[in-house]
Amino acid sequence: MAETEWKWIKGNVCAPLGFRANGVCCGIKRPELPKLDLALLVSDEPCVAAGMFTRNRVKAAPVRVSQARLKKQKIQAIIANSGNANACTGKQGMADAERMTQLAAEATGLSANQILVASTGLIGAPLPMERIEPKVAELAKGLQRKRGNLAAEAIMTSDTKPKEVAVEVKLGETKVKIGAIAKGAGMIRPDMATMLAFVTTDARIQQEELTAATKEAVDQSFHRITVDGDMSTNDTVFVLANGMAGGPALKAKSKDLKLFTAALSAVMLELAKKMVRDGERVTKFVEVKVNSAKSEKEARQVAQAVANSLLVKCAWSGGDPNWGRVMHAIGYSGAPIDETTIDIYFGGVLAAKGGLSAGTPLPELLQAVEPREFELRIELHRGKESYSMYSSDITPEFVDFNREEYSMLKAMKL
Amino acid sequence: MAETEWKWIKGNVCAPLGFRANGVCCGIKRPELPKLDLALLVSDEPCVAAGMFTRNRVKAAPVRVSQARLKKQKIQAIIANSGNANACTGKQGMADAERMTQLAAEATGLSANQILVASTGLIGAPLPMERIEPKVAELAKGLQRKRGNLAAEAIMTSDTKPKEVAVEVKLGETKVKIGAIAKGAGMIRPDMATMLAFVTTDARIQQEELTAATKEAVDQSFHRITVDGDMSTNDTVFVLANGMAGGPALKAKSKDLKLFTAALSAVMLELAKKMVRDGERVTKFVEVKVNSAKSEKEARQVAQAVANSLLVKCAWSGGDPNWGRVMHAIGYSGAPIDETTIDIYFGGVLAAKGGLSAGTPLPELLQAVEPREFELRIELHRGKESYSMYSSDITPEFVDFNREEYSMLKAMKL
Repeated sequence: MAETEWKWIKGNVCAPLGFRANGVCCGIKRPELPKLDLALLVSDEPCVAAGMFTRNRVKAAPVRVSQARLKKQKIQAIIANSGNANACTGKQGMADAERMTQLAAEATGLSANQILVASTGLIGAPLPMERIEPKVAELAKGLQRKRGNLAAEAIMTSDTKPKEVAVEVKLGETKVKIGAIAKGAGMIRPDMATMLAFVTTDARIQQEELTAATKEAVDQSFHRITVDGDMSTNDTVFVLANGMAGGPALKAKSKDLKLFTAALSAVMLELAKKMVRDGERVTKFVEVKVNSAKSEKEARQVAQAVANSLLVKCAWSGGDPNWGRVMHAIGYSGAPIDETTIDIYFGGVLAAKGGLSAGTPLPELLQAVEPREFELRIELHRGKESYSMYSSDITPEFVDFNREEYSMLKAMKL
Repeated sequence: MAETEWKWIKGNVCAPLGFRANGVCCGIKRPELPKLDLALLVSDEPCVAAGMFTRNRVKAAPVRVSQARLKKQKIQAIIANSGNANACTGKQGMADAERMTQLAAEATGLSANQILVASTGLIGAPLPMERIEPKVAELAKGLQRKRGNLAAEAIMTSDTKPKEVAVEVKLGETKVKIGAIAKGAGMIRPDMATMLAFVTTDARIQQEELTAATKEAVDQSFHRITVDGDMSTNDTVFVLANGMAGGPALKAKSKDLKLFTAALSAVMLELAKKMVRDGERVTKFVEVKVNSAKSEKEARQVAQAVANSLLVKCAWSGGDPNWGRVMHAIGYSGAPIDETTIDIYFGGVLAAKGGLSAGTPLPELLQAVEPREFELRIELHRGKESYSMYSSDITPEFVDFNREEYSMLKAMKL
């Protein structure tokens, strides 16, 4: 990925030409909560669109509705809410998800078929449509290019800050932009912490190429922060391309398409990292980098096992350079490793060599894991492949936070 | 399993005829710690023996040594220590594990080949042989039938109490006994919390039958409390049968062998449950029971996903009857479920019906998850198969406990 060929710019989903957004407060979670919770994003022109969704067999209603919409294309808008996932809500949930697109269609003059929908929040409670309905007209009226940040805020759940990012990339003679907003939060088997990412671009690209680029970019980013590849009931990535930057459509296998895909991957990876850094009660951000593997698959197996190990994550939280727990996780990763060739580095400091203590003085190791962000590097000495996962620690506060949800259930009188 | 045909009795590994045990303190973890940490168990007669070990590719030295010993049979003793796992310790670790059996042999008059060895504790630090060596003679001299409890105590790590259990079962005209001690502690990807279980019996049984019975019993017990089927570097189950109860050897496929296997399973399941109940900082014990599955495999997939979900376990800790998180875990279990046919019960109270809220008043649900032990039952309505997992909650104190290990590393001057 040649970073010189594209550059970070300020902005979000409204950075590319022809996109407007807004966010309003409906009190979805609790009527008295003065928090943005309904977002709308509209393109001036119909878009080529791609979507990737949770692999969980229990799929939220908005996921099912959007999957159907994407088959028809000419997508031009996304409506999304936080506070309620509209998952495990049966027929009523499907009707509510469709109703949300209908409301957005009425307020924008589009057809409901052109509108995607996403929800994130509590599972199993019906969407409070009576609080959403009265707000959609106001939401649509307020659509502006400078309000992408309000949409970013309106999709937050336990996120502590909105996540937005944008890049500019030159494809031939044409300058195109890619912008995005996202929400994450918990890192382990997200639940309340559903991941949503909405990406826009003014590049001209066709359906097949956009779908392929999106798959590649998700693989390089969000899949590297998800536990065991499993996803919540609502995880959704949408990419909308309205072609308004002009120029020729990106051709399959072209250098420009590669560049576009690299820039799209960079956008998503940056969002993914922001999600980890803003994980619930997180105090450490760790890149688990596995090198010298025989295959990418085996590098990935090892990286995932280590990055997902609860005990490894507890150790990070305690500032413990515990390479024994790392070895243990490598051992059950399923990769055909040889423990006697494994080296482990914390922030560049050798902790284990050939599967044994490297004898590095403890103060040096303690110092290596002290920073808020560090790299945990594992050398397998079996080949030339690498894989990175981005992980966080787990703190007592994370557990405390995640067991207090029932107060919310109570508030919703379930 | 016809419980009427066997009965619980008081005792442990010394309940069957011809076994003696002892435990002493060597200060393996810290020299100044007055805690039993070296155990010895000896049979008056050579035993038929079976062993099951961790599937982790990183295997501790004692696991490797014992695996080799079991091939030769005529086993007559087990020596085991806590405080140090002798894992990730390379050639020195292998030499130390063999030396432990040699020391036990010298002190008991047996051959080192007849002795199994197990270790549990910190990974990656060499075994302090200089603290162990001087104590082995005293350990052997003190062997007594009434000291099984000292052996149980000597293998504890973060366990809060020793785990022992025994049964008596009538096989034809012969009364035989099965006794056991074990240590567990953490429930998630045990590390410090390696699982060890030593089982003895005075039944007459041959190698092949004992191995099959052991596999079956482990499958019915310890595998139902292990995360994703993965195990630590040291997990070990030994079963020794000295035949001293007399009577004919148990025949393959006989009713008596089935009865013996059922009793052995009951012994191991009881130990397994004790491990969960005594998990690190645990406040809840939950049986996750999956019914009406199409196959045992799919019942197991669902039970494992739910029983291992960190967010589900956090909810239990908070007394939260959160059926949405349960649905979510069922959805990513890999089982081909249909969310619209799933019912979920907490302690017999219906929480979700057909994948939707059952509308049960919250106070009833809160009451159902209040007890220290309750059943979480999931009906898939797809067939007739069942599977149970035994799980605990995860508390903030668990995380706190597991991040404070480095003080131990410091103490060991690693």
